Amino acid sequence: MNVAAKTDQAGANDRDRALRERAQRVIPGGMWGHMNAARLPPEYPQYFAKAEGARIWDVNGRDYVDFMCAWGPMVLGYRDPDVEAAVRTQSALGDSLNGPSERLVELAERLAGTIPHCDWSLLAKNGTDATTICLSVARAGTGKRKVLIAHKAYHGAAPWCTPYPAGTLPEDRAHQIFYDYNDAASLEQAAAEAGDDLAAIIATAMRHDIGRDHELVDRRFAETARAICDRTGAALILDDVRAGFRLHLGGSWERAGVRPDLSAFSKAIANGYALAAVTGADRFREAATKIFTTGSFWFQAIPMAAALATLDKLHALDGPALMERAGLRFRQGIQAQAQSHGVKIRQSGPPQMPLILFEDDPEVTKSKFFCVEALKRGVYLHPVHTMFLSCAHTDAEIDRALEATDGAFAAVAAKFG
Amino acid sequence: MNVAAKTDQAGANDRDRALRERAQRVIPGGMWGHMNAARLPPEYPQYFAKAEGARIWDVNGRDYVDFMCAWGPMVLGYRDPDVEAAVRTQSALGDSLNGPSERLVELAERLAGTIPHCDWSLLAKNGTDATTICLSVARAGTGKRKVLIAHKAYHGAAPWCTPYPAGTLPEDRAHQIFYDYNDAASLEQAAAEAGDDLAAIIATAMRHDIGRDHELVDRRFAETARAICDRTGAALILDDVRAGFRLHLGGSWERAGVRPDLSAFSKAIANGYALAAVTGADRFREAATKIFTTGSFWFQAIPMAAALATLDKLHALDGPALMERAGLRFRQGIQAQAQSHGVKIRQSGPPQMPLILFEDDPEVTKSKFFCVEALKRGVYLHPVHTMFLSCAHTDAEIDRALEATDGAFAAVAAKFG
Repeated sequence: MNVAAKTDQAGANDRDRALRERAQRVIPGGMWGHMNAARLPPEYPQYFAKAEGARIWDVNGRDYVDFMCAWGPMVLGYRDPDVEAAVRTQSALGDSLNGPSERLVELAERLAGTIPHCDWSLLAKNGTDATTICLSVARAGTGKRKVLIAHKAYHGAAPWCTPYPAGTLPEDRAHQIFYDYNDAASLEQAAAEAGDDLAAIIATAMRHDIGRDHELVDRRFAETARAICDRTGAALILDDVRAGFRLHLGGSWERAGVRPDLSAFSKAIANGYALAAVTGADRFREAATKIFTTGSFWFQAIPMAAALATLDKLHALDGPALMERAGLRFRQGIQAQAQSHGVKIRQSGPPQMPLILFEDDPEVTKSKFFCVEALKRGVYLHPVHTMFLSCAHTDAEIDRALEATDGAFAAVAAKFG
Repeated sequence: MNVAAKTDQAGANDRDRALRERAQRVIPGGMWGHMNAARLPPEYPQYFAKAEGARIWDVNGRDYVDFMCAWGPMVLGYRDPDVEAAVRTQSALGDSLNGPSERLVELAERLAGTIPHCDWSLLAKNGTDATTICLSVARAGTGKRKVLIAHKAYHGAAPWCTPYPAGTLPEDRAHQIFYDYNDAASLEQAAAEAGDDLAAIIATAMRHDIGRDHELVDRRFAETARAICDRTGAALILDDVRAGFRLHLGGSWERAGVRPDLSAFSKAIANGYALAAVTGADRFREAATKIFTTGSFWFQAIPMAAALATLDKLHALDGPALMERAGLRFRQGIQAQAQSHGVKIRQSGPPQMPLILFEDDPEVTKSKFFCVEALKRGVYLHPVHTMFLSCAHTDAEIDRALEATDGAFAAVAAKFG
């Protein structure tokens, strides 16, 4: 068998490629959204077959230690036995019914008991649902219109916030004023621009813009946001969709000592089951009764049962501390390897949500090359997006990942010198 | 034990009431959205414990033959064994992963094979996601802005379409022009008003405004919508969220012989699992690649596996015909009972999605009274909203329901004469 025939055979056995070809016919561009592998080097798989703990298998049968965690939702480990047991118990009763099950009340009570600023909550399906509801509650409660948003922050993919505005109207972004994240002066300036029409300030838990060093929230910035809202009556909205339940179980700004009026949670809340939550302070309770928002599946009992089990276990394990330790082990290993191979990198973000960027890498060529080399060696990293640790990232998994990244750094050193 | 003590004891054992009281503390107004029992007479339960087939149990242990089907999603029967088996199989592999499983491709192929106008599809979680995506695709594809919407039609609960605008901005409804459903002349007039800026016409599968006799789509109206879009290049968007997969597996306007460019599906697509789909014709394929929309849980494999099993079974059973027969049996029974009790009613909507209204009932007093009497006798109906039949509504379940409604009509006759 010659090389060409071997390659053909490899192609024929490439289930991922075959699926991508089939998808080209029935999905515009073959895929859409944040999980579109066309946004990654071609070596990345698009389709996945299964997952367990911190491991994920692509459809070609290769497995990886996974540092994307389904882009955040997986916080305890894929198919966590306790969450799955709660799901099975609820599933034997029912899921979509003519109203909620008592899991709704239990979960709203749990959120109020866990998150200091939370007096009440509303549930939904998407992170975008939650950020949109926060904005509506703020406008209903204040009777005002302007919202202050950080430049380049991601708050979801509805017309008012999608980062690619094709198909939306300029009117969808009416009454938005932009500030720079962690820049208290720019926030004050934006607030001044809003005058007496300020409904809300919205901020992500940290600065996690794609392809840019991540920044934890600056305490003075957070305090300034709080002070502006206290002074004007506007709502301080924390978009905790990406970071929620990884940094602190009481909300990600607890570490900065600043409490929002409204928070948007989703991703990690139910270890992969579809759920989003808006949590709010009493000051906005009445406003929350005025808006009308709902969805066919918002009262499903299974995701709520999964959320209760997830929060229970995150508390029992002290999940944020566990993930921080795992993330630090990974970060320290990466730092030592980079140094030993003479490769200059920058690591940012909290250890639970790391980002690795390379010096002198304006086109992220090195970053992509490194990630592909790691992928070949059994580790799934992302070159420009926030990554995620989970409670299933044991020392053994981290060490396995570090074996692979050592080879990847060697390859980077060999290629880029 | 005296009567007061008995009542107290009954109250103490009223789990639904206890849950409502707890919810008052941690959920604004105690509940929100379309499943808020505050919108129904006080006898209706808010919380449900379990469901099976066509039966639902409230938290107080009472069971009902259910004519709401979780407000539409349940189309095969609660906990349908074939759907649940597909869910278990997928669940053993994984659900939220770093990308889709091959269920995505299978489902997109299945939709293209089932729905004549569908060349491609995109998936999401909420019906509102799907209608919103349709609108964005239409605007991206046409480069135009105006959308024609029927007065009082429900297209979801995002700021651009929520029926209660508290917390939204006038700008959220920019470039909307209204027509009367089934009134071809009003549609032509709205199109004229849009001039050369027409992006889309959106229409629900039928007229199903709350509290109003339902109307099937008028063929001439549908043809006029199609003709306007053909003439102007605008997109004809069918909002098939509520009716999809109950009236016709190829899309609800197949019966009218008119094909949309884009359709929004959700509710019944996966028998209760959270999924929505946009299906589109080739003309809008490129536009669909331009927009950016996504969600953390949009690529979950379990709901897609559930959708495949649901569509398989709906085909195998000829679900729409089965539900039509069950609906007709119910409708004919209701009609005979009303007549025998001398109660004047109007039944509307397709048999699979019935609505029962009473003559001389401007405040829907009779309708609510009737529904409460039916509820007491073990049947869950809705006084003003579209109801839903499922494939689990066997003759025996319909006949059991009719025994209860006979008593309810007798009570109406006794009270209102």
